Parts: sequence; C-alpha cells; structure tokens
Amino acid sequence: MAAVARLSLNQATIKRATVAEAVEGCARHGIESIGLWREPVADHGLDRTAKLVADAGLRVSSLCRGGFLTAVDNRAALDDNRRAIDEAAALRTDVLVMVVGGVQPDKDLVGARQRVADAIAELSVHAGGAGVTLALEPMHPVFCADRGVLSTLSQALDLAEQNSSVGVVVDALHVWWDPDLDAQIVRAGPHIASYQVCDWLTPVPADVLLGRGYPGDGDIDLDRLTRHVAATGYAGDVEVEIFNAGIWAADFDEVIERVKRGYHDVVEPAL
Amino acid sequence: MAAVARLSLNQATIKRATVAEAVEGCARHGIESIGLWREPVADHGLDRTAKLVADAGLRVSSLCRGGFLTAVDNRAALDDNRRAIDEAAALRTDVLVMVVGGVQPDKDLVGARQRVADAIAELSVHAGGAGVTLALEPMHPVFCADRGVLSTLSQALDLAEQNSSVGVVVDALHVWWDPDLDAQIVRAGPHIASYQVCDWLTPVPADVLLGRGYPGDGDIDLDRLTRHVAATGYAGDVEVEIFNAGIWAADFDEVIERVKRGYHDVVEPAL
Repeated sequence: MAAVARLSLNQATIKRATVAEAVEGCARHGIESIGLWREPVADHGLDRTAKLVADAGLRVSSLCRGGFLTAVDNRAALDDNRRAIDEAAALRTDVLVMVVGGVQPDKDLVGARQRVADAIAELSVHAGGAGVTLALEPMHPVFCADRGVLSTLSQALDLAEQNSSVGVVVDALHVWWDPDLDAQIVRAGPHIASYQVCDWLTPVPADVLLGRGYPGDGDIDLDRLTRHVAATGYAGDVEVEIFNAGIWAADFDEVIERVKRGYHDVVEPAL
Repeated sequence: MAAVARLSLNQATIKRATVAEAVEGCARHGIESIGLWREPVADHGLDRTAKLVADAGLRVSSLCRGGFLTAVDNRAALDDNRRAIDEAAALRTDVLVMVVGGVQPDKDLVGARQRVADAIAELSVHAGGAGVTLALEPMHPVFCADRGVLSTLSQALDLAEQNSSVGVVVDALHVWWDPDLDAQIVRAGPHIASYQVCDWLTPVPADVLLGRGYPGDGDIDLDRLTRHVAATGYAGDVEVEIFNAGIWAADFDEVIERVKRGYHDVVEPAL
C-alpha cells in the first residue's frame, strides 16, 4: 500500500456514498486519507463524523467547501463561511476548500472579484483563530460565470500572499490549460494547501461540471504537473476528486479500485 | 441604418444558410459587412462568392478559418493554410481567422504551443505576400484540449508582436473571463484584426461549443469590453458570431433582426 500512502479519496468521487460508506471504503482499500463535504458530514453529524474518521485512523485532507462570496450583500455567506471554518477545525483538517462564487446579475466581474478579496481578508481572521487555512480554488474559466471568479492560480496567489491563513488549491482540471502555469506553480510553493487530480475528458460531456475522468484517461499531462508540484516541496495528500455521472452511478469498490490504479500509475511515480 | 454601420454578420450565425442566402439576408436587413466561412464559400465557388459579395456592395470582415497546426507533422495543415490565405485574398478580406488547434495524443501542451508559434512564423511570410493578416483567435480554455491551445490574448499577442502580418481576434466569448484582460486589450491596440461579439450563457448547454447567445442575453459585460476595444482606436467591423442550436434552427430573418437589435442595444452605444 505504500504506493498510495498520500492518496486521499475525495468523497465527491463516490457521491452517493454516505460518510460512513466512504470511510469504510477507504479502510477496505487501504486509503489513509479522505476529503469530506459539508452536506454529507451534516447528514452524519459533525461530531460523529470527527469520531468516525479518527477511529478509522484516517486523515481528513480537506473539507469542501466554503465560498460563494460574490453577492453584493454577502453577510449571510460570511456567516456560513465562519461555520464552515469551525466545521473544518472540528473535523481536524486545516484545509477548507473555497469556491468563491460566480458573476452576479450586474455582470460586474471586476466588482465580484473585489468582493471576494474583501471577504477573504475578513474571513482570514476567523480562519487564523481556528487554525484553518482558506484554500482558494482557482476555477477553470468555464465556471467563471456560475461558480468561481478566481480563474487563475495567479489571482488566487495574490490573495494568499496578502492574507495570513490563506492558501491555494492546485486542481489539475482547473489549471492545466494556463500558459503561465509553470511559473505560478513555483510561486505557489509554500501556499499550496491542497493538490487535487482528475483528468479532462474530450469531448466535454453534456454537463460540463461532470467532465472529469480518472487520472490518465484524459488530456492533461499529470506526470508533468505532479512533478512541478512535488518540486515545490509539497508533501501533503493528493486528492482524487472526480465529478462524473457514470462514475457516480458505478459500484463504490470498483470506483475506488480505479482511483487507486490511476493514482498509482500516473500520479505517484511523479511525486 | 447608421447604428449598425459597423455590424458584420458572421455567416455561422445562420449556419444553414448558403452564401447566397447569407448575402441576401445582409442586403435585406441593411447590414454592410459579412464574415464568411471556407466551406460554404467552396460550395458556392470562390470566384463566384467574391463577385457576389462585391456586387452586393458588402465588405468581407473576415474569412474563417485557418489553423489546426498542432499535429507533430503539420505539413498538410501548412499547405491548407496557404490555400486559406489565398482564398482570403481572393475574397478581398485581409483577415483570416486562425483557430490554432488543440492538444495532441502526446498530451504535450507546451510542445503544441511551440508548434503553433513555429507554424505561424512560417505562414506569416505567405500571408504578407498576399496582403492578409493571420488573425490569431485566443480560445476560451474550455477549448484548449480540442480546438485551440492559445488560451489567452497575451499568448496571441506574443506571436503578433513577433511576426509581421499577424494580428489577433478579440472574441468576447473567449476572453471575457481573463483577469488580465484590461491590460491585454490596451496592449492589443494596433494588433486587433477582428472584434467579435456574442454572449456567454449559463448554464452551459449540452454542447459547450454551442453555448452562445445574442449580445446582452448572457453574463458578459459587453458594454465595458466594447468601450475598452474602442478606446484602442479599433475602427473595424464588429462581427456577431453565434453558435447555438436553437438559433441555427430559427428563421434567418428572425435571427438577423435579433442580431441587429442586440448589436444596436448593447454594442453600438459603446463604440
């Protein structure tokens, strides 16, 4: 199992699974780390989930997700993000993944990005107090309108450099196309809070959100990207997070086996 | 009709139309410029098309498209691009839109981009001789894998600055998300060979290629972008180019009216 020692199963990869089923799946397949999502954690109960993963000896590589901060009035969102920070701390993970939110009806992309910057500065205080890092996830530009106005690693790093308790997520799917990627990975070094892998499938399926494949099944040179991330000294877990209707419909054990194989064949040799 | 004097109808917006039908549609609706595509032009005949548009008093704002230069052996593509340059000259347009091609099975994005740079340098000689500008179209990163590895205006401008007879296309759909857009539009100034508008629709439809709407119907602040383009001194035509299954199925006259209205309401006031 040494070859998958840094593999973390993001539970969204087996979306139908409860927290208990996901934890059992990790245990059954020798995976030592898990990425959790707030909704299934709430279904199982926060404290019960914390106990469950601790009893299973699992690391929690991240909690997904905070964010959605681009509304002109984002006070409710700020409150919710403070709760998410506390939940991350309760789950004993120091990584809260942040999907910052999309363009609002005013179409003011510049303004939306500024609201994100302001909100992150405000939330970083609470995060610091809780010992949690706000892991800003630059989102592929296909999601700029509806999910995340941070479109490049460079933008996320600007905020990570300006605020304490703020880092970045390097998700292969979101950043692979960036012509400035090599330089930004170097710059990201100490700020990388999470490295996530999956693959870009062509043609893009009917729901672009679900266009993710197992590592090695798509167009991304994951060997090259992983080598660059490893060269920064990143020593954390590597999450496999796949949104894909076919994978979501499949048997959990079969999916976890394929995750392990993709990780073992494509990612682990480059770490 | 003064308010649509710079409007060009890209014929892909009424994809089912023949060249003759598209030219007649422009004439019927007082549109003075048209963007042509090679395949329907070939169907009508190159010289016949040149005479048709000249007799109708239409400008040809661009010819779509050259490109697809990322194959390791791209000699056939280079030959085809030289033919496309000659076709543009025959049609009396100085703008050949270039969609440079996607990632190849080797997954070597850096290599693909280098092949594009080499090919553009080679083709620029032929373009210069024909009086045609190779208008490099940076493509939205959602198309990086399968259509265009030039993902940002900055990348396209690097090549435009390094080669004579090479310019850029600013297509709102492809560039709107770019956090560096304002600065790159300023830089683009003298290199803008074509400005194209449509809108980004959310949610992205089943075929991401067809996720385009009439100007004003989506998430892009076209007023702001158009003002920035106009501020560079760009005085050329503004193409409306919409790929959308519903619009392709609609009546040509209805579509052209909606194109005019969108252009008139959203784009023209900002020019």
